Amino acid sequence: MVRAEVIVHLKPGISDPEGSNTTKALHLLGFDAVQSVHTTKVWEIDLGDTPEAEAREQVDKMCRRLLTNPVIHDYDVEIRS
Amino acid sequence: MVRAEVIVHLKPGISDPEGSNTTKALHLLGFDAVQSVHTTKVWEIDLGDTPEAEAREQVDKMCRRLLTNPVIHDYDVEIRS
Repeated sequence: MVRAEVIVHLKPGISDPEGSNTTKALHLLGFDAVQSVHTTKVWEIDLGDTPEAEAREQVDKMCRRLLTNPVIHDYDVEIRS
Repeated sequence: MVRAEVIVHLKPGISDPEGSNTTKALHLLGFDAVQSVHTTKVWEIDLGDTPEAEAREQVDKMCRRLLTNPVIHDYDVEIRS
């Protein structure tokens, strides 16, 4: 079983309202040590017995067509067999 | 700088509509090798110079109070200095 992990994060300089609002909420709850919060999304995709090189190419296409927004996101792909 | 990573995933048996709809969408785009898709959320929390043991305890409280829903989520915490 080939499994791909796509780790999606915001490009540097792109504002992260979810992170900054979570920081504020944690301060309101008394967690004063928190300096900043960022979120990352991970897609785990099972690709059956696709060969590894082909899996990587396919996942790269999926990222560009559906899983990420190239205007605001960077992504890394890890393939595990 | 202490940084905590909180990895949030759905408990076994909890339905994952985002994952199943993404699987369908990838099939419609022609990615037939995709068998299933799951999503994971990662919170990255900067905690300044909080001692590691205290950071772990604080992050565990944050998870229970704000970052996760104990009915549907499991989570793992990793602390990096």
